[in-house]
Amino acid sequence: MGDRMQKFSRNQRIAAVTKILLENPNKIMGLNNFTEMFNTAKSTVSEDIVVVKDTLNKLDMGKINTVSGAAGGIKYVCGMSNEKKREFAEKLCIILKDRERIIPGNFLYMTDIMFNPKIIYTAGLILASIFIEKDIDYVVTVETKGIPLAYEVARMLGVQLVVVRRETKFTEGSTLTINYVSGSTGRIQNMSLSKKALKKGSKCIFIDDFMKAGGTAKGIVDLLKEFESELLGIGILIDNIGIANKLVEDYVSLVDFKGIDESGNAILFPSKMFN
Amino acid sequence: MGDRMQKFSRNQRIAAVTKILLENPNKIMGLNNFTEMFNTAKSTVSEDIVVVKDTLNKLDMGKINTVSGAAGGIKYVCGMSNEKKREFAEKLCIILKDRERIIPGNFLYMTDIMFNPKIIYTAGLILASIFIEKDIDYVVTVETKGIPLAYEVARMLGVQLVVVRRETKFTEGSTLTINYVSGSTGRIQNMSLSKKALKKGSKCIFIDDFMKAGGTAKGIVDLLKEFESELLGIGILIDNIGIANKLVEDYVSLVDFKGIDESGNAILFPSKMFN
Repeated sequence: MGDRMQKFSRNQRIAAVTKILLENPNKIMGLNNFTEMFNTAKSTVSEDIVVVKDTLNKLDMGKINTVSGAAGGIKYVCGMSNEKKREFAEKLCIILKDRERIIPGNFLYMTDIMFNPKIIYTAGLILASIFIEKDIDYVVTVETKGIPLAYEVARMLGVQLVVVRRETKFTEGSTLTINYVSGSTGRIQNMSLSKKALKKGSKCIFIDDFMKAGGTAKGIVDLLKEFESELLGIGILIDNIGIANKLVEDYVSLVDFKGIDESGNAILFPSKMFN
Repeated sequence: MGDRMQKFSRNQRIAAVTKILLENPNKIMGLNNFTEMFNTAKSTVSEDIVVVKDTLNKLDMGKINTVSGAAGGIKYVCGMSNEKKREFAEKLCIILKDRERIIPGNFLYMTDIMFNPKIIYTAGLILASIFIEKDIDYVVTVETKGIPLAYEVARMLGVQLVVVRRETKFTEGSTLTINYVSGSTGRIQNMSLSKKALKKGSKCIFIDDFMKAGGTAKGIVDLLKEFESELLGIGILIDNIGIANKLVEDYVSLVDFKGIDESGNAILFPSKMFN
Protein backbone atom coordinates (compact mmCIF):
# COMPACT_ATOMS: atom_id res chain seq x y z
CA MET A 1 0.00 0.00 0.00
CA GLY A 2 2.91 2.36 0.59
CA ASP A 3 0.95 3.91 3.44
CA ARG A 4 3.90 3.79 5.74
CA MET A 5 5.84 6.12 3.53
CA GLN A 6 3.28 8.88 3.94
CA LYS A 7 4.68 11.91 5.70
CA PHE A 8 2.87 13.49 8.62
CA SER A 9 3.40 16.93 10.05
CA ARG A 10 3.60 17.42 13.81
CA ASN A 11 0.07 18.86 13.74
CA GLN A 12 -1.25 15.83 11.94
CA ARG A 13 0.54 13.40 14.23
CA ILE A 14 -0.92 15.18 17.25
CA ALA A 15 -4.46 14.89 15.87
CA ALA A 16 -3.97 11.17 15.16
CA VAL A 17 -2.26 10.39 18.48
CA THR A 18 -5.05 12.16 20.37
CA LYS A 19 -7.71 10.16 18.54
CA ILE A 20 -6.00 6.81 19.01
CA LEU A 21 -5.30 7.37 22.71
CA LEU A 22 -8.88 8.48 23.30
CA GLU A 23 -10.22 5.38 21.58
CA ASN A 24 -8.17 3.18 23.90
CA PRO A 25 -8.84 4.48 27.41
CA ASN A 26 -6.64 3.14 30.21
CA LYS A 27 -4.79 0.87 27.79
CA ILE A 28 -1.01 0.95 27.69
CA MET A 29 0.13 1.67 24.14
CA GLY A 30 3.75 1.15 23.16
CA LEU A 31 5.36 4.06 21.33
CA ASN A 32 6.16 1.69 18.45
CA ASN A 33 2.44 1.82 17.53
CA PHE A 34 3.01 5.45 16.62
CA THR A 35 6.55 5.31 15.23
CA GLU A 36 5.41 2.65 12.74
CA MET A 37 2.23 4.50 11.84
CA PHE A 38 4.05 7.76 11.16
CA ASN A 39 7.37 6.30 10.01
CA THR A 40 9.18 8.53 12.44
CA ALA A 41 11.61 8.42 15.39
CA LYS A 42 10.65 7.61 18.97
CA SER A 43 11.94 10.99 20.14
CA THR A 44 9.61 12.75 17.70
CA VAL A 45 6.58 10.78 18.87
CA SER A 46 7.57 11.47 22.49
CA GLU A 47 7.49 15.18 21.76
CA ASP A 48 4.06 14.84 20.14
CA ILE A 49 2.77 13.04 23.23
CA VAL A 50 4.09 15.78 25.52
CA VAL A 51 1.91 18.25 23.62
CA VAL A 52 -1.19 16.07 24.06
CA LYS A 53 -0.36 15.52 27.73
CA ASP A 54 0.13 19.23 28.44
CA THR A 55 -3.10 20.12 26.65
CA LEU A 56 -5.17 17.63 28.65
CA ASN A 57 -3.58 18.93 31.88
CA LYS A 58 -4.15 22.55 30.95
CA LEU A 59 -7.82 21.92 30.17
CA ASP A 60 -8.31 19.38 32.98
CA MET A 61 -9.66 16.85 30.46
CA GLY A 62 -7.89 13.70 31.63
CA LYS A 63 -4.26 12.62 31.72
CA ILE A 64 -1.61 10.84 29.70
CA ASN A 65 0.34 8.54 32.02
CA THR A 66 3.71 7.03 31.23
CA VAL A 67 4.18 3.39 32.18
CA SER A 68 7.80 2.25 32.28
CA GLY A 69 9.18 -1.25 31.87
CA ALA A 70 9.23 -3.87 29.14
CA ALA A 71 5.47 -3.69 28.53
CA GLY A 72 5.56 0.07 29.00
CA GLY A 73 4.22 2.91 26.97
CA ILE A 74 1.62 5.59 27.50
CA LYS A 75 -2.04 5.50 28.34
CA TYR A 76 -4.93 7.92 28.31
CA VAL A 77 -6.71 8.16 31.65
CA CYS A 78 -10.13 9.78 31.57
CA GLY A 79 -10.82 12.82 33.72
CA MET A 80 -12.84 15.99 34.02
CA SER A 81 -12.58 19.14 36.15
CA ASN A 82 -14.53 19.14 39.42
CA GLU A 83 -16.38 22.20 38.17
CA LYS A 84 -17.57 20.37 35.04
CA LYS A 85 -18.53 17.31 37.08
CA ARG A 86 -20.67 19.38 39.41
CA GLU A 87 -22.24 21.21 36.45
CA PHE A 88 -23.19 17.84 34.98
CA ALA A 89 -24.82 16.65 38.22
CA GLU A 90 -26.74 19.93 38.50
CA LYS A 91 -28.01 19.66 34.93
CA LEU A 92 -29.03 16.06 35.52
CA CYS A 93 -31.08 17.14 38.55
CA ILE A 94 -32.88 19.74 36.47
CA ILE A 95 -33.72 17.13 33.80
CA LEU A 96 -34.94 14.68 36.46
CA LYS A 97 -37.13 17.31 38.17
CA ASP A 98 -39.42 17.56 35.14
CA ARG A 99 -42.87 16.87 36.63
CA GLU A 100 -43.83 14.67 33.70
CA ARG A 101 -41.32 12.13 35.00
CA ILE A 102 -43.44 11.26 38.04
CA ILE A 103 -45.31 8.03 37.31
CA PRO A 104 -47.90 6.15 39.40
CA GLY A 105 -46.38 4.89 42.66
CA ASN A 106 -44.26 8.05 42.96
CA PHE A 107 -41.50 6.64 40.80
CA LEU A 108 -39.33 8.79 38.58
CA TYR A 109 -39.28 7.79 34.93
CA MET A 110 -35.59 7.75 34.10
CA THR A 111 -35.27 5.11 31.40
CA ASP A 112 -34.56 7.72 28.71
CA ILE A 113 -31.72 9.11 30.85
CA MET A 114 -30.11 5.68 31.23
CA PHE A 115 -30.30 5.17 27.45
CA ASN A 116 -29.13 8.66 26.47
CA PRO A 117 -25.55 8.26 25.19
CA LYS A 118 -24.61 11.90 25.79
CA ILE A 119 -25.59 11.70 29.47
CA ILE A 120 -24.27 8.18 29.99
CA TYR A 121 -20.91 8.99 28.40
CA THR A 122 -20.29 11.78 30.92
CA ALA A 123 -21.77 9.90 33.90
CA GLY A 124 -19.60 6.91 32.99
CA LEU A 125 -16.52 9.09 32.73
CA ILE A 126 -17.15 10.61 36.16
CA LEU A 127 -17.73 7.22 37.81
CA ALA A 128 -14.70 5.70 36.05
CA SER A 129 -12.49 8.56 37.25
CA ILE A 130 -13.43 7.66 40.86
CA PHE A 131 -12.24 4.07 40.48
CA ILE A 132 -9.37 4.62 38.05
CA GLU A 133 -6.65 4.23 40.70
CA LYS A 134 -7.93 0.79 41.73
CA ASP A 135 -6.65 -2.14 39.78
CA ILE A 136 -10.01 -3.53 38.61
CA ASP A 137 -10.58 -6.68 36.56
CA TYR A 138 -14.33 -6.35 35.88
CA VAL A 139 -17.19 -3.91 36.06
CA VAL A 140 -20.31 -5.78 37.22
CA THR A 141 -23.94 -4.71 36.79
CA VAL A 142 -27.38 -6.32 36.93
CA GLU A 143 -29.64 -6.17 33.88
CA THR A 144 -31.20 -3.97 32.42
CA LYS A 145 -31.25 -0.21 32.85
CA GLY A 146 -27.72 0.18 34.22
CA ILE A 147 -26.04 -1.70 31.36
CA PRO A 148 -25.03 1.29 29.18
CA LEU A 149 -23.62 3.13 32.22
CA ALA A 150 -21.69 0.08 33.40
CA TYR A 151 -20.47 -0.51 29.84
CA GLU A 152 -19.18 3.06 29.61
CA VAL A 153 -17.38 2.74 32.97
CA ALA A 154 -15.83 -0.56 31.83
CA ARG A 155 -14.75 1.02 28.54
CA MET A 156 -13.10 3.95 30.32
CA LEU A 157 -11.33 1.58 32.71
CA GLY A 158 -10.30 -0.68 29.83
CA VAL A 159 -11.84 -3.80 31.39
CA GLN A 160 -14.53 -6.38 30.69
CA LEU A 161 -18.18 -5.78 31.61
CA VAL A 162 -20.11 -8.54 33.40
CA VAL A 163 -23.91 -8.47 33.37
CA VAL A 164 -25.70 -10.48 36.03
CA ARG A 165 -29.05 -11.86 34.82
CA ARG A 166 -32.37 -12.09 36.61
CA GLU A 167 -33.05 -15.50 35.08
CA THR A 168 -30.85 -18.30 33.80
CA LYS A 169 -30.47 -18.47 30.02
CA PHE A 170 -29.43 -21.55 28.06
CA THR A 171 -27.01 -19.45 25.99
CA GLU A 172 -24.95 -18.82 29.13
CA GLY A 173 -23.78 -22.39 29.72
CA SER A 174 -23.53 -23.46 33.38
CA THR A 175 -24.67 -20.69 35.67
CA LEU A 176 -24.46 -19.95 39.35
CA THR A 177 -27.67 -18.62 40.91
CA ILE A 178 -28.05 -16.99 44.30
CA ASN A 179 -31.07 -15.74 46.20
CA TYR A 180 -31.08 -12.33 47.76
CA VAL A 181 -33.57 -10.22 49.65
CA SER A 182 -34.71 -6.97 48.08
CA GLY A 183 -34.07 -4.40 50.82
CA SER A 184 -37.05 -2.24 49.89
CA THR A 185 -39.74 -4.88 49.29
CA GLY A 186 -38.42 -7.74 51.44
CA ARG A 187 -39.05 -10.14 48.55
CA ILE A 188 -36.64 -12.92 47.71
CA GLN A 189 -35.16 -12.61 44.23
CA ASN A 190 -32.67 -14.47 42.05
CA MET A 191 -29.54 -13.43 40.28
CA SER A 192 -27.57 -15.66 37.93
CA LEU A 193 -24.18 -15.50 36.35
CA SER A 194 -22.47 -17.78 33.84
CA LYS A 195 -19.59 -19.75 35.34
CA LYS A 196 -17.56 -18.55 32.37
CA ALA A 197 -18.19 -14.86 33.10
CA LEU A 198 -15.69 -14.23 35.88
CA LYS A 199 -12.25 -15.62 36.75
CA LYS A 200 -11.62 -16.65 40.36
CA GLY A 201 -9.78 -14.11 42.48
CA SER A 202 -11.01 -11.10 40.52
CA LYS A 203 -11.38 -7.54 41.73
CA CYS A 204 -14.65 -5.92 40.71
CA ILE A 205 -16.71 -2.78 41.04
CA PHE A 206 -20.51 -2.72 40.85
CA ILE A 207 -22.25 -0.03 38.78
CA ASP A 208 -26.00 0.52 38.78
CA ASP A 209 -28.57 3.13 37.82
CA PHE A 210 -30.47 3.48 41.09
CA MET A 211 -30.06 2.47 44.72
CA LYS A 212 -32.94 1.94 47.09
CA ALA A 213 -32.00 -0.07 50.20
CA GLY A 214 -28.97 -1.63 48.52
CA GLY A 215 -30.28 -5.21 48.44
CA THR A 216 -29.03 -5.73 44.89
CA ALA A 217 -25.57 -4.43 45.79
CA LYS A 218 -25.46 -6.76 48.79
CA GLY A 219 -26.56 -9.62 46.52
CA ILE A 220 -23.63 -8.83 44.22
CA VAL A 221 -21.21 -9.04 47.16
CA ASP A 222 -22.57 -12.53 47.93
CA LEU A 223 -22.52 -13.61 44.29
CA LEU A 224 -18.91 -12.47 43.91
CA LYS A 225 -17.96 -14.49 47.00
CA GLU A 226 -19.24 -17.59 45.19
CA PHE A 227 -16.77 -16.72 42.43
CA GLU A 228 -14.06 -16.20 45.10
CA SER A 229 -13.92 -12.61 43.94
CA GLU A 230 -14.02 -9.28 45.66
CA LEU A 231 -16.06 -6.10 45.38
CA LEU A 232 -13.81 -3.03 45.65
CA GLY A 233 -16.37 -0.31 45.06
CA ILE A 234 -19.94 0.62 44.18
CA GLY A 235 -20.95 3.47 41.89
CA ILE A 236 -24.58 4.54 41.44
CA LEU A 237 -26.09 7.23 39.22
CA ILE A 238 -29.02 8.10 41.51
CA ASP A 239 -29.30 7.24 45.20
CA ASN A 240 -32.69 7.24 46.92
CA ILE A 241 -31.55 8.78 50.21
CA GLY A 242 -35.15 8.71 51.45
CA ILE A 243 -34.35 5.12 52.45
CA ALA A 244 -32.11 5.54 55.48
CA ASN A 245 -30.82 2.09 56.40
CA LYS A 246 -28.70 0.94 53.49
CA LEU A 247 -27.56 -2.68 53.32
CA VAL A 248 -24.13 -1.62 51.98
CA GLU A 249 -21.92 1.10 53.41
CA ASP A 250 -19.33 2.20 50.93
CA TYR A 251 -20.70 3.55 47.70
CA VAL A 252 -20.66 6.72 45.62
CA SER A 253 -23.57 8.28 43.78
CA LEU A 254 -23.77 11.28 41.48
CA VAL A 255 -27.26 12.47 42.33
CA ASP A 256 -29.34 12.10 45.51
CA PHE A 257 -33.12 11.65 45.34
CA LYS A 258 -35.17 12.34 48.46
CA GLY A 259 -38.67 11.47 47.26
CA ILE A 260 -41.52 13.69 46.07
CA ASP A 261 -42.55 16.69 48.21
CA GLU A 262 -46.15 17.73 49.11
CA SER A 263 -46.45 19.95 46.04
CA GLY A 264 -45.50 17.03 43.82
CA ASN A 265 -41.93 18.00 43.00
CA ALA A 266 -39.08 15.53 43.05
CA ILE A 267 -36.34 16.47 45.55
CA LEU A 268 -33.00 16.01 43.85
CA PHE A 269 -29.50 17.43 44.31
CA PRO A 270 -25.89 16.66 43.42
CA SER A 271 -24.49 14.12 45.88
CA LYS A 272 -22.02 14.94 48.63
CA MET A 273 -19.09 13.96 46.40
CA PHE A 274 -19.47 17.38 44.76
CA ASN A 275 -19.22 19.37 48.02
CA MET B 1 -11.04 31.73 36.89
CA GLY B 2 -9.15 33.61 34.19
CA ASP B 3 -9.05 30.35 32.21
CA ARG B 4 -10.19 32.07 29.07
CA MET B 5 -7.06 34.17 28.99
CA GLN B 6 -4.85 31.08 28.73
CA LYS B 7 -2.93 30.93 25.50
CA PHE B 8 -2.92 27.80 23.39
CA SER B 9 -0.49 26.89 20.63
CA ARG B 10 -1.78 25.46 17.37
CA ASN B 11 -0.55 22.03 18.45
CA GLN B 12 -2.44 22.27 21.70
CA ARG B 13 -5.62 23.50 20.03
CA ILE B 14 -5.47 20.60 17.60
CA ALA B 15 -5.18 18.06 20.43
CA ALA B 16 -8.13 19.65 22.25
CA VAL B 17 -10.30 20.03 19.14
CA THR B 18 -9.68 16.38 18.22
CA LYS B 19 -10.67 15.21 21.70
CA ILE B 20 -13.82 17.32 21.86
CA LEU B 21 -15.01 16.31 18.38
CA LEU B 22 -14.38 12.65 19.11
CA GLU B 23 -16.37 12.87 22.32
CA ASN B 24 -19.35 14.29 20.41
CA PRO B 25 -19.82 11.99 17.42
CA ASN B 26 -22.25 13.13 14.72
CA LYS B 27 -23.10 16.26 16.70
CA ILE B 28 -22.89 19.65 15.02
CA MET B 29 -20.59 21.90 17.01
CA GLY B 30 -20.50 25.63 16.34
CA LEU B 31 -17.06 27.12 15.88
CA ASN B 32 -17.81 29.50 18.75
CA ASN B 33 -17.35 26.54 21.13
CA PHE B 34 -13.72 26.58 20.15
CA THR B 35 -13.10 30.31 19.68
CA GLU B 36 -14.34 30.89 23.25
CA MET B 37 -12.38 28.03 24.70
CA PHE B 38 -9.13 29.15 23.09
CA ASN B 39 -9.82 32.89 23.05
CA THR B 40 -8.91 33.01 19.41
CA ALA B 41 -10.29 34.02 16.01
CA LYS B 42 -12.68 31.94 13.94
CA SER B 43 -10.18 31.83 11.07
CA THR B 44 -7.56 30.34 13.38
CA VAL B 45 -9.92 27.64 14.61
CA SER B 46 -10.94 26.91 11.02
CA GLU B 47 -7.31 26.27 10.15
CA ASP B 48 -6.97 23.94 13.15
CA ILE B 49 -10.00 22.00 12.00
CA VAL B 50 -8.60 21.61 8.49
CA VAL B 51 -5.59 19.86 10.02
CA VAL B 52 -7.81 17.44 11.96
CA LYS B 53 -9.95 16.85 8.89
CA ASP B 54 -6.96 16.15 6.62
CA THR B 55 -5.44 13.78 9.17
CA LEU B 56 -8.62 11.72 9.51
CA ASN B 57 -8.91 11.55 5.71
CA LYS B 58 -5.29 10.56 5.28
CA LEU B 59 -5.57 7.76 7.83
CA ASP B 60 -9.14 6.78 6.84
CA MET B 61 -10.26 7.19 10.46
CA GLY B 62 -13.55 9.03 9.97
CA LYS B 63 -14.46 12.46 8.67
CA ILE B 64 -15.04 16.03 9.74
CA ASN B 65 -18.10 17.38 7.92
CA THR B 66 -19.00 21.02 7.61
CA VAL B 67 -22.65 21.90 8.08
CA SER B 68 -23.59 25.33 6.79
CA GLY B 69 -26.49 27.56 7.85
CA ALA B 70 -27.56 29.29 11.04
CA ALA B 71 -27.23 26.15 13.19
CA GLY B 72 -24.10 25.18 11.28
CA GLY B 73 -20.68 24.11 12.38
CA ILE B 74 -18.61 20.99 12.10
CA LYS B 75 -19.17 17.42 13.15
CA TYR B 76 -17.09 14.31 13.55
CA VAL B 77 -18.46 11.35 11.61
CA CYS B 78 -17.06 7.96 12.59
CA GLY B 79 -15.37 5.80 10.00
CA MET B 80 -12.74 3.16 9.41
CA SER B 81 -10.92 1.80 6.36
CA ASN B 82 -12.46 -1.23 4.66
CA GLU B 83 -9.21 -3.09 5.30
CA LYS B 84 -9.42 -2.48 9.06
CA LYS B 85 -13.12 -3.43 9.08
CA ARG B 86 -12.40 -6.74 7.42
CA GLU B 87 -9.46 -7.37 9.75
CA PHE B 88 -11.80 -6.84 12.69
CA ALA B 89 -14.38 -9.31 11.34
CA GLU B 90 -11.66 -11.89 10.71
CA LYS B 91 -10.28 -11.53 14.23
CA LEU B 92 -13.78 -11.84 15.65
CA CYS B 93 -14.27 -15.12 13.76
CA ILE B 94 -11.04 -16.49 15.22
CA ILE B 95 -12.14 -15.56 18.74
CA LEU B 96 -15.57 -17.14 18.16
CA LYS B 97 -14.08 -20.37 16.78
CA ASP B 98 -12.53 -21.26 20.15
CA ARG B 99 -13.92 -24.75 20.81
CA GLU B 100 -14.55 -23.93 24.48
CA ARG B 101 -17.34 -21.63 23.29
CA ILE B 102 -19.55 -24.51 22.19
CA ILE B 103 -22.13 -25.14 24.91
CA PRO B 104 -24.83 -27.84 25.19
CA GLY B 105 -27.39 -27.50 22.41
CA ASN B 106 -24.65 -26.46 19.94
CA PHE B 107 -24.88 -22.82 20.94
CA LEU B 108 -21.90 -20.51 20.84
CA TYR B 109 -21.11 -18.79 24.12
CA MET B 110 -20.67 -15.17 23.10
CA THR B 111 -21.77 -13.20 26.15
CA ASP B 112 -18.19 -12.12 26.92
CA ILE B 113 -17.88 -10.75 23.36
CA MET B 114 -21.06 -8.69 23.67
CA PHE B 115 -19.77 -7.23 26.96
CA ASN B 116 -16.19 -6.62 25.83
CA PRO B 117 -15.88 -2.83 25.36
CA LYS B 118 -12.89 -3.07 23.01
CA ILE B 119 -14.78 -5.37 20.61
CA ILE B 120 -18.12 -3.60 20.99
CA TYR B 121 -16.58 -0.17 20.39
CA THR B 122 -15.25 -1.26 16.99
CA ALA B 123 -18.31 -3.32 16.05
CA GLY B 124 -20.51 -0.35 16.97
CA LEU B 125 -18.37 1.99 14.89
CA ILE B 126 -18.61 -0.29 11.85
CA LEU B 127 -22.40 -0.67 12.15
CA ALA B 128 -22.85 3.06 12.76
CA SER B 129 -20.82 3.88 9.65
CA ILE B 130 -23.28 1.83 7.58
CA PHE B 131 -26.27 3.87 8.77
CA ILE B 132 -24.59 7.25 9.15
CA GLU B 133 -26.09 8.69 5.97
CA LYS B 134 -29.66 7.95 7.08
CA ASP B 135 -31.32 10.53 9.21
CA ILE B 136 -32.10 8.34 12.23
CA ASP B 137 -33.97 9.38 15.38
CA TYR B 138 -33.48 6.26 17.51
CA VAL B 139 -31.46 3.07 17.73
CA VAL B 140 -33.73 0.29 18.98
CA THR B 141 -32.69 -3.01 20.56
CA VAL B 142 -34.26 -5.76 22.69
CA GLU B 143 -32.79 -6.58 26.09
CA THR B 144 -30.19 -7.90 27.08
CA LYS B 145 -27.06 -8.99 25.26
CA GLY B 146 -27.24 -6.48 22.40
CA ILE B 147 -27.56 -3.42 24.65
CA PRO B 148 -23.88 -2.35 24.72
CA LEU B 149 -23.60 -2.73 20.94
CA ALA B 150 -26.81 -0.78 20.32
CA TYR B 151 -25.67 1.86 22.81
CA GLU B 152 -22.36 2.24 20.98
CA VAL B 153 -24.14 2.60 17.62
CA ALA B 154 -26.51 5.19 19.13
CA ARG B 155 -23.56 7.09 20.63
CA MET B 156 -21.73 7.18 17.29
CA LEU B 157 -24.90 8.33 15.51
CA GLY B 158 -25.56 10.92 18.23
CA VAL B 159 -29.09 9.66 18.92
CA GLN B 160 -31.11 8.14 21.75
CA LEU B 161 -31.10 4.40 22.45
CA VAL B 162 -34.43 2.62 23.01
CA VAL B 163 -34.46 -0.76 24.75
CA VAL B 164 -37.51 -2.95 24.27
CA ARG B 165 -38.25 -5.11 27.31
CA ARG B 166 -39.37 -8.73 27.51
CA GLU B 167 -41.70 -7.92 30.42
CA THR B 168 -43.55 -4.80 31.51
CA LYS B 169 -41.94 -2.93 34.42
CA PHE B 170 -43.77 -0.53 36.73
CA THR B 171 -40.88 1.95 36.42
CA GLU B 172 -41.71 2.40 32.74
CA GLY B 173 -45.14 4.04 33.15
CA SER B 174 -47.75 3.05 30.54
CA THR B 175 -46.38 0.49 28.14
CA LEU B 176 -47.39 -0.95 24.83
CA THR B 177 -47.02 -4.73 24.53
CA ILE B 178 -47.14 -6.81 21.37
CA ASN B 179 -46.98 -10.55 20.75
CA TYR B 180 -44.66 -11.95 18.13
CA VAL B 181 -43.72 -15.42 16.97
CA SER B 182 -40.15 -16.55 17.43
CA GLY B 183 -39.10 -17.68 13.96
CA SER B 184 -36.82 -20.45 15.22
CA THR B 185 -38.98 -21.98 17.99
CA GLY B 186 -42.46 -21.00 16.80
CA ARG B 187 -43.30 -19.85 20.34
CA ILE B 188 -45.31 -16.74 21.00
CA GLN B 189 -43.40 -14.12 22.96
CA ASN B 190 -43.98 -10.61 24.30
CA MET B 191 -42.16 -7.37 23.82
CA SER B 192 -43.02 -4.16 25.68
CA LEU B 193 -42.06 -0.56 25.31
CA SER B 194 -42.89 2.46 27.42
CA LYS B 195 -45.25 4.90 25.70
CA LYS B 196 -42.76 7.60 26.65
CA ALA B 197 -39.84 5.89 24.88
CA LEU B 198 -40.51 6.87 21.29
CA LYS B 199 -42.04 9.89 19.56
CA LYS B 200 -44.60 9.26 16.82
CA GLY B 201 -43.27 9.46 13.29
CA SER B 202 -39.73 8.45 14.19
CA LYS B 203 -37.12 6.81 11.99
CA CYS B 204 -35.31 3.95 13.65
CA ILE B 205 -32.73 1.27 13.10
CA PHE B 206 -32.69 -2.05 14.97
CA ILE B 207 -29.40 -3.40 16.34
CA ASP B 208 -29.00 -6.87 17.85
CA ASP B 209 -26.30 -9.36 18.75
CA PHE B 210 -27.54 -12.41 16.89
CA MET B 211 -30.10 -13.27 14.23
CA LYS B 212 -31.73 -16.65 13.88
CA ALA B 213 -34.93 -16.59 11.79
CA GLY B 214 -35.47 -12.86 12.34
CA GLY B 215 -38.63 -13.18 14.44
CA THR B 216 -37.44 -10.53 16.88
CA ALA B 217 -36.61 -8.12 14.06
CA LYS B 218 -40.05 -8.68 12.57
CA GLY B 219 -41.57 -8.08 16.00
CA ILE B 220 -39.74 -4.76 16.16
CA VAL B 221 -41.23 -3.72 12.80
CA ASP B 222 -44.70 -4.44 14.21
CA LEU B 223 -43.98 -2.68 17.50
CA LEU B 224 -42.70 0.41 15.68
CA LYS B 225 -45.90 0.48 13.60
CA GLU B 226 -47.85 0.80 16.85
CA PHE B 227 -45.75 3.89 17.56
CA GLU B 228 -46.44 5.10 13.99
CA SER B 229 -42.72 4.86 13.42
CA GLU B 230 -40.56 3.32 10.77
CA LEU B 231 -37.66 0.88 10.66
CA LEU B 232 -34.99 2.05 8.18
CA GLY B 233 -32.38 -0.61 8.76
CA ILE B 234 -31.24 -3.65 10.73
CA GLY B 235 -27.68 -4.30 11.89
CA ILE B 236 -26.61 -7.57 13.49
CA LEU B 237 -23.26 -8.66 14.87
CA ILE B 238 -23.61 -12.38 14.05
CA ASP B 239 -26.07 -13.88 11.59
CA ASN B 240 -26.93 -17.58 11.78
CA ILE B 241 -27.04 -18.24 8.04
CA GLY B 242 -27.78 -21.92 8.73
CA ILE B 243 -31.40 -20.75 9.01
CA ALA B 244 -32.37 -20.08 5.41
CA ASN B 245 -35.81 -18.50 5.45
CA LYS B 246 -35.44 -15.20 7.25
CA LEU B 247 -38.55 -13.29 8.29
CA VAL B 248 -36.90 -9.97 7.34
CA GLU B 249 -35.10 -9.19 4.12
CA ASP B 250 -32.91 -6.15 4.46
CA TYR B 251 -30.27 -6.40 7.13
CA VAL B 252 -26.50 -6.27 7.49
CA SER B 253 -24.34 -8.49 9.67
CA LEU B 254 -20.62 -8.43 10.40
CA VAL B 255 -20.06 -12.15 10.85
CA ASP B 256 -21.89 -15.18 9.45
CA PHE B 257 -22.31 -18.36 11.49
CA LYS B 258 -23.18 -21.58 9.70
CA GLY B 259 -23.49 -24.00 12.61
CA ILE B 260 -21.06 -26.57 13.97
CA ASP B 261 -19.39 -29.01 11.54
CA GLU B 262 -18.99 -32.81 12.08
CA SER B 263 -15.61 -32.38 13.76
CA GLY B 264 -17.14 -29.98 16.25
CA ASN B 265 -15.81 -26.71 14.88
CA ALA B 266 -17.95 -23.63 14.51
CA ILE B 267 -18.20 -22.42 10.90
CA LEU B 268 -17.74 -18.67 10.89
CA PHE B 269 -16.61 -16.09 8.35
CA PRO B 270 -16.78 -12.33 7.69
CA SER B 271 -20.14 -11.48 6.12
CA LYS B 272 -20.61 -10.58 2.47
CA MET B 273 -20.38 -6.86 3.28
CA PHE B 274 -16.60 -7.35 3.39
CA ASN B 275 -16.33 -8.89 -0.09
